[in-house]
Amino acid sequence: MMAGFKTIALIGKYKSPQIAAPLLHLARFLQGRGVRVLLDPLTSAYVVGNALEVLPLDEIGRIADLAIVIGGDGTMLNIARTLAPFDVALVGVNQGRLGFLTDVSIDTMLDTIGAMLDGQAVTESRMLLAAEVHRAGSRIFDVLAFNDTSIGKGADGGLIELEVRIDGHFVYLLRADGLIVSTPTGSTAYALSAGGPILHPALSAISIVPVCPHTLSNRPIAVASTAQVEILMHRCADARVHFDSHSHCDLQAGDRILVRCYERSLRLLHPIGHNYYHMLREKLHWSEVL
Amino acid sequence: MMAGFKTIALIGKYKSPQIAAPLLHLARFLQGRGVRVLLDPLTSAYVVGNALEVLPLDEIGRIADLAIVIGGDGTMLNIARTLAPFDVALVGVNQGRLGFLTDVSIDTMLDTIGAMLDGQAVTESRMLLAAEVHRAGSRIFDVLAFNDTSIGKGADGGLIELEVRIDGHFVYLLRADGLIVSTPTGSTAYALSAGGPILHPALSAISIVPVCPHTLSNRPIAVASTAQVEILMHRCADARVHFDSHSHCDLQAGDRILVRCYERSLRLLHPIGHNYYHMLREKLHWSEVL
Amino acid sequence: MMAGFKTIALIGKYKSPQIAAPLLHLARFLQGRGVRVLLDPLTSAYVVGNALEVLPLDEIGRIADLAIVIGGDGTMLNIARTLAPFDVALVGVNQGRLGFLTDVSIDTMLDTIGAMLDGQAVTESRMLLAAEVHRAGSRIFDVLAFNDTSIGKGADGGLIELEVRIDGHFVYLLRADGLIVSTPTGSTAYALSAGGPILHPALSAISIVPVCPHTLSNRPIAVASTAQVEILMHRCADARVHFDSHSHCDLQAGDRILVRCYERSLRLLHPIGHNYYHMLREKLHWSEVL
Amino acid sequence: MMAGFKTIALIGKYKSPQIAAPLLHLARFLQGRGVRVLLDPLTSAYVVGNALEVLPLDEIGRIADLAIVIGGDGTMLNIARTLAPFDVALVGVNQGRLGFLTDVSIDTMLDTIGAMLDGQAVTESRMLLAAEVHRAGSRIFDVLAFNDTSIGKGADGGLIELEVRIDGHFVYLLRADGLIVSTPTGSTAYALSAGGPILHPALSAISIVPVCPHTLSNRPIAVASTAQVEILMHRCADARVHFDSHSHCDLQAGDRILVRCYERSLRLLHPIGHNYYHMLREKLHWSEVL
Repeated sequence: MMAGFKTIALIGKYKSPQIAAPLLHLARFLQGRGVRVLLDPLTSAYVVGNALEVLPLDEIGRIADLAIVIGGDGTMLNIARTLAPFDVALVGVNQGRLGFLTDVSIDTMLDTIGAMLDGQAVTESRMLLAAEVHRAGSRIFDVLAFNDTSIGKGADGGLIELEVRIDGHFVYLLRADGLIVSTPTGSTAYALSAGGPILHPALSAISIVPVCPHTLSNRPIAVASTAQVEILMHRCADARVHFDSHSHCDLQAGDRILVRCYERSLRLLHPIGHNYYHMLREKLHWSEVL
Repeated sequence: MMAGFKTIALIGKYKSPQIAAPLLHLARFLQGRGVRVLLDPLTSAYVVGNALEVLPLDEIGRIADLAIVIGGDGTMLNIARTLAPFDVALVGVNQGRLGFLTDVSIDTMLDTIGAMLDGQAVTESRMLLAAEVHRAGSRIFDVLAFNDTSIGKGADGGLIELEVRIDGHFVYLLRADGLIVSTPTGSTAYALSAGGPILHPALSAISIVPVCPHTLSNRPIAVASTAQVEILMHRCADARVHFDSHSHCDLQAGDRILVRCYERSLRLLHPIGHNYYHMLREKLHWSEVL
Repeated sequence: MMAGFKTIALIGKYKSPQIAAPLLHLARFLQGRGVRVLLDPLTSAYVVGNALEVLPLDEIGRIADLAIVIGGDGTMLNIARTLAPFDVALVGVNQGRLGFLTDVSIDTMLDTIGAMLDGQAVTESRMLLAAEVHRAGSRIFDVLAFNDTSIGKGADGGLIELEVRIDGHFVYLLRADGLIVSTPTGSTAYALSAGGPILHPALSAISIVPVCPHTLSNRPIAVASTAQVEILMHRCADARVHFDSHSHCDLQAGDRILVRCYERSLRLLHPIGHNYYHMLREKLHWSEVL
Repeated sequence: MMAGFKTIALIGKYKSPQIAAPLLHLARFLQGRGVRVLLDPLTSAYVVGNALEVLPLDEIGRIADLAIVIGGDGTMLNIARTLAPFDVALVGVNQGRLGFLTDVSIDTMLDTIGAMLDGQAVTESRMLLAAEVHRAGSRIFDVLAFNDTSIGKGADGGLIELEVRIDGHFVYLLRADGLIVSTPTGSTAYALSAGGPILHPALSAISIVPVCPHTLSNRPIAVASTAQVEILMHRCADARVHFDSHSHCDLQAGDRILVRCYERSLRLLHPIGHNYYHMLREKLHWSEVL
């Protein structure tokens, strides 16, 4: 089913001229295999003198079968949010240490990508969150998140008080530093540092993890991805909501943040032999024997 | 779809003569509604002088549409394991404080059960675990668990060392007091006290929670219910495996414990208005405001 | 030894006219017992028409034997920091629900304070932290903290990276949301919500608690109060340091925050029968039986 | 002050013939420095053909200035409990990986011990616990513990319910897998795996850490070493109390376990340059940067 990648976009880490050489190398390799290669404008600007076809990202989304991201997990998160509405598979090539999402080494990328063109890959489906901020009856913010939607204190560190509702049911009132609503992908990121569980990517779930709750009795909960999570801000001080630590929105008392599973999931390609548990041990030193 | 409960079994808490009066009261109510009422032999023995039809539990499983358990969550766990292979719905009537699984009050049971006969109920599907212990190539133990399968130290408290594998992949080596493999139902029981996440019952997941791990870097993980969990005992001392804290099996080095989602799920009936989050707050004082 | 409170200051919660009546009532009671009663200017402004002697807080520090604070724990923290350099005992009268530091009820204050004048009290010694911020060789901030000194992210939530040193020894490098350095008094406040241990006030200790560390292997540590804690900011983003959530200082990379036990401890008076463990159970629902 | 080690005992790991050669090597080195060298009977039995002076451990306790333990942390714990009543310093030589208590490498022991004879050492004072079990008014068990006194479930895993009192005050009622009362030395052992804080050895404190408490609101507490901790067993099932995981006592409902700081502390010698925080990072990978 992943046979036949005819049109492939190459997307480089933002403002990183050092990706130019490997990217051109990869482009030539793909063209040699008869693939149409596309660049987005930002990447093209850093690949000086290239003669590759340049299209905006939404056009890439409509045309490409596969997007190869050369960068780190941060770049991958950004592209994942952008391309999630389209039917494009993603694969991540890492310049440095392998990441959770970028697990093809730049040193062996030609072999690995070549094998993927031949259908040798592990395909994985990952969910995203669709989040909205409502104020006084109007939707003032609308964004996708691949890792998490988190509410946190601002610079003054004033108390936040919020109410969580799921599918219309009152869940709890929370006084805390913050609250994280996370996908399985985000469960190894911020949510983990706040004490949340690791959620395997094959699990279609949303975890809700408090940050420094002012009560001893809160604990993280994971709910089915069909749940509609609603957060009502009771006291805000200088609270903000963050989406993948990428975009932010200042909050006011009375604001409602709605978080649900995005209707489309993302197809990630991994090299044959990909093993999620191995990644957890490598990246997090999870359950390391002393 | 839950219309038409024609044959209903009444099952009382083990060795509890005080359930005789309410049970007979309920039996008469059901017979008055044209229902065939069954008792299991253990219950019948405590309902002195009753003239109700008595059948063994497996026969009840084949015949009854619904089993009404009068007792606490412990009784409910036992009956759930026994009746899970059959197509019988369950409802729990509690003598004392409401439980997670027994949320019909004995004081209002006629109204609630009557409404359920009229189709007024919240139906919930709950997964169980099927666990096996293998030794030297033979399966020596084979049991269902509704809450959890847990490995723990024995009386001498000697070190346990075990290996977890999922779907054939090495997950981690663990030195610990124990390890809990839990259903969503069990996620508010032992697994929670060991630091595991709460898993909503609608989430089809298995959580794996270490008990006092000898490394700082272990964390609970939740995986999809399709996962096959395998535990290999490297060092055993006097370790045992427990199933719902009900049955036990002494372990030896080399033993393999296999845990997977049981092929049939259990149908639980709750009164209209049932709310899982409310139960978490009531029973656990979850996220209680101070 | 606490016999002979000849001069007593009455200090009310900031901008709280409702304390005027009970404060005047208490003042007359004390004057009736031959005590010289003092007010600070801020309190006096809210006790309209009073004819009491008004002195600035540092003058009160030099003259008074005892300061009675009418307010909540927040007011008490403020006055504790201000009067710590002087030899003044403190007692807290609470308008509402009793606090950790304000455990004399306004309803029974005449009896309790009267008994204290007769020597009936539990005296407790509490440590404070002396904190300094150094930048480019100069001390730019210098303050006392009764609860804690904490470093935290600002509004943008950028990554903080810092190094902890104790008594000149490297302790660890930390990437995290923040770090809390807490007294036993503060151990039931912010440090507790971040997963730190409760430290009994009689324990002369400083706890160091990370907030959402980016590694699985950090854990809180408590060290002797003789320890000199030094925090070096490696990466700052928009980090700030907070002192009792009261005063704040923006940080830059290269800043050093020094925290040590303040040379003077504070004398708190409690009513006879005061019990710290009771307070933990009342205020935190600590180890509540479900 | 540690000048003048005239009489030194050498104590080897139990049933470990491989320590014979290095032990004899060290004995000759010490004798060459004019030191009187003693062995205990168990060690002597494994050092075949030695002509060294053999004395029972309590005689060694009265006569020796220093005991050098060749083994691991387990051997050191045993000897520490035995020699704590006497005025003997301890140093630990490790055959394998350095331990928390055995931090002299066997490869460099002559240099390090030689330097210690010249007064080049870091001396540290460590507290122990004195524990007693009382039943029906009689003391039935009486033991020292260097790491911890812990109450735990037995093989059947039945519910434990106990009450903690400190200095005569009710602290809490606990339903749990167990409870750990730990010294700072033990704070990096079992207590840490149960979620307790690390306590620096210079802190004179006792930590009380629940194991899998059946309430969400318990948290570890550290109290001053002057505290008298009392544990009353309400429900026992097959509970036991363990002392350093070395000796054990079966418990019954009504039993009282008393734990207090032992009146004498132990002098540990470390090589110059010893650094506790380094040890935490090496042994526990504490706050490891990923």
